[in-house]
Amino acid sequence: MLGEIIAIGNELTSGRIPNTTSGFAAHHLFKAGFDIYAMHTIGDTPALIGEALNRALGRVDFVLVTGGLGPTDDDLTTAAVSEALNRPTMPNLEILSLIRQHLDENTDQSISSLEKLAWLPEGAETLSPKTRMAGFQLIHNDKPIFFLPGVPHQMRTLLTEQVLPRLATWYKGRQLTSSQRVFRIFGKTETEVNQLVKNIVLDDNVEIGYYPVFPDVHLSMTVRGNDENKTDDLARRSCRLIADKLGSFIYGCDRDTMESVLGTLLLKQNKQLSVAESCTGGLISHLMTSIAGSSGYYLGGVTSYANSMKTRYLGVDESVLENHGAVSTEVAIAMAEGMRVKSNADISIAVTGIAGPGGGTADKPVGTVFIGFSDRNETKVQHFLFSGNRYEIQRLTAQTALDIVRRHLLRQDHKSIKL
Amino acid sequence: MLGEIIAIGNELTSGRIPNTTSGFAAHHLFKAGFDIYAMHTIGDTPALIGEALNRALGRVDFVLVTGGLGPTDDDLTTAAVSEALNRPTMPNLEILSLIRQHLDENTDQSISSLEKLAWLPEGAETLSPKTRMAGFQLIHNDKPIFFLPGVPHQMRTLLTEQVLPRLATWYKGRQLTSSQRVFRIFGKTETEVNQLVKNIVLDDNVEIGYYPVFPDVHLSMTVRGNDENKTDDLARRSCRLIADKLGSFIYGCDRDTMESVLGTLLLKQNKQLSVAESCTGGLISHLMTSIAGSSGYYLGGVTSYANSMKTRYLGVDESVLENHGAVSTEVAIAMAEGMRVKSNADISIAVTGIAGPGGGTADKPVGTVFIGFSDRNETKVQHFLFSGNRYEIQRLTAQTALDIVRRHLLRQDHKSIKL
Repeated sequence: MLGEIIAIGNELTSGRIPNTTSGFAAHHLFKAGFDIYAMHTIGDTPALIGEALNRALGRVDFVLVTGGLGPTDDDLTTAAVSEALNRPTMPNLEILSLIRQHLDENTDQSISSLEKLAWLPEGAETLSPKTRMAGFQLIHNDKPIFFLPGVPHQMRTLLTEQVLPRLATWYKGRQLTSSQRVFRIFGKTETEVNQLVKNIVLDDNVEIGYYPVFPDVHLSMTVRGNDENKTDDLARRSCRLIADKLGSFIYGCDRDTMESVLGTLLLKQNKQLSVAESCTGGLISHLMTSIAGSSGYYLGGVTSYANSMKTRYLGVDESVLENHGAVSTEVAIAMAEGMRVKSNADISIAVTGIAGPGGGTADKPVGTVFIGFSDRNETKVQHFLFSGNRYEIQRLTAQTALDIVRRHLLRQDHKSIKL
Repeated sequence: MLGEIIAIGNELTSGRIPNTTSGFAAHHLFKAGFDIYAMHTIGDTPALIGEALNRALGRVDFVLVTGGLGPTDDDLTTAAVSEALNRPTMPNLEILSLIRQHLDENTDQSISSLEKLAWLPEGAETLSPKTRMAGFQLIHNDKPIFFLPGVPHQMRTLLTEQVLPRLATWYKGRQLTSSQRVFRIFGKTETEVNQLVKNIVLDDNVEIGYYPVFPDVHLSMTVRGNDENKTDDLARRSCRLIADKLGSFIYGCDRDTMESVLGTLLLKQNKQLSVAESCTGGLISHLMTSIAGSSGYYLGGVTSYANSMKTRYLGVDESVLENHGAVSTEVAIAMAEGMRVKSNADISIAVTGIAGPGGGTADKPVGTVFIGFSDRNETKVQHFLFSGNRYEIQRLTAQTALDIVRRHLLRQDHKSIKL
């Protein structure tokens, strides 16, 4: 079952208000097994409203229209629909009586402007008049059309409480079930992921999409079918094939983030982390503490942006800074060890690098980053050359540092399983 | 001048990723004097892409298409456009040589999948090949069409750096002049700003808009007219009236951020800042170091998430922590002083609070925050109760802390002017 969404309002086409309602509707319709063929955002222009509606009715099974239902002069949806579908407006007696009752309580409002709300196209059925939210349904050429207010919370309420149940009843037995999973991947490009996955033989009912969502790549897998058990089984088998190909490059699924996955691993292994940051300037610490409950495994850290901070708080020798420069293997090692010992953490990571745009040299261009890792057994360092603007280099450095700790903890997990 | 925006991608029509790019484009095109007739969001379906593009070309002056330009199998925009406009794809030699150069550095990638990026419809002009962002322009029937990647940060960069200047050149002299200024306000709600500004008598050609952009409020002033000198003069006078009403609640204009404004003040007064963070977990430090050149005034800081970090790195007495709790006036003072003395900064700020969702008590509910300020003359503390979710409380705390330092430096500025 295929639908279209039409959002109406000059505030949307001028970009003054972001259109959040169409995406919300698409997401919930998709989850309920309906596909969206197209979404349109248009101004309060009657001819365009009518044209968009008629074209949608010609090619899809249902239409959702939001916005332009209010009482002011620039709300033109009802009049445009009446004209486009050749359904004269007529007063809805239930709404009229609710408005009159409301006006009795608030006598300073003029009746004429509000009564506009009661005039609906012939055949309209109101969705939830008692809640005083505008919104109605029309069945035209055997296809349901839903008209909802553009106010986001009203639209969301009516969509979930009225539209989804009505659509499910209308198309009962005619729709497919669907299952979607998103894999979150770090350390491979979109193209590399595509190359790895495209040779897997998947069922025709499995659809794969690739999306770079910086700094990650997301792979979405959608499975459709008539039988829920079969769909679930197919989804499970396809997941396994994809997971086998991509291995630990998949760090999580659906709503996971690198920092939430790392937090879960630290908690499980009862390890405490601290972080010494130079070029990332606090970003790693900010990511770690964005997770509620992170105080269970995250101690904190030092942002040693100036060299004086590296000596005073991390115990890095001035001679090491002088001989090797702040961006070096030696300083990354000293920062990681200094951080771990003084904070008494199980694991510390340290980053030092050049985020740009200034500060690069021929030897150490912008994007040069050293990441040190220290635990109670060893201290080691890795050297990277990232590309991008300042924010991108900081973000890539942070994600890579977290990934280094994640991969270390995964290896510990495997070891403990073997023992 | 009228345009349409077409966003392409199954991730958008399934509601999996919200479409933020179309609204951004509409907003910036509107500010530049162009109106948007309609915006469409469609899946990776070649027939629909072609249909939407041809219909737009039939009724508006320019078209912006985003998404579907990547190297993977589900990126179909270029092929669809080639078909719809009857312009066969041909290889772009500049892109081809950039890709080959890139592959020489990364030899494990296959050439065929990336070379897809170099095949563009006949007559296409690339927008910014050196940045390795996909994106090209076509002039079709004397109308410009811009194709941009769907990746939000790339799309935003190319829109502002390439599309807007190219459109302005193309339609030079055919449009009204307009001048827009955005005031960035912190510490007042949208309604409070509205109340203060609404009594100012402004010219009919001046349009004011209010937008809450968390944690700030933005006030936009748009002036339109036929005569550039008159428009500029009216804009200047109106700006002054607004600035008088809102005073130091306006922290900046247009692209300023709290951290960039604070950085400029610190640099001007030759002061060095360091930060001790508990509930903000590194966010303040991250904001300060997001600005290129921040090493000129920002030393770094300590994220003392655990109590042990407060004693070891900031010298907070264990007895103070025990007697008053980590979230208290006394600890905020000790953190700010400890930070300033050991880092030898001119100014230090310290925050300690409860970001939630857990950890609140009757005495100290979620949102309780103490912000300490210390310079070489004094140490003081302010007590706040913020509301919102975890991220909102962290972000409000960070912005308030930066604002405290900004207001302190503004007073120093005034004093030095008086002397």
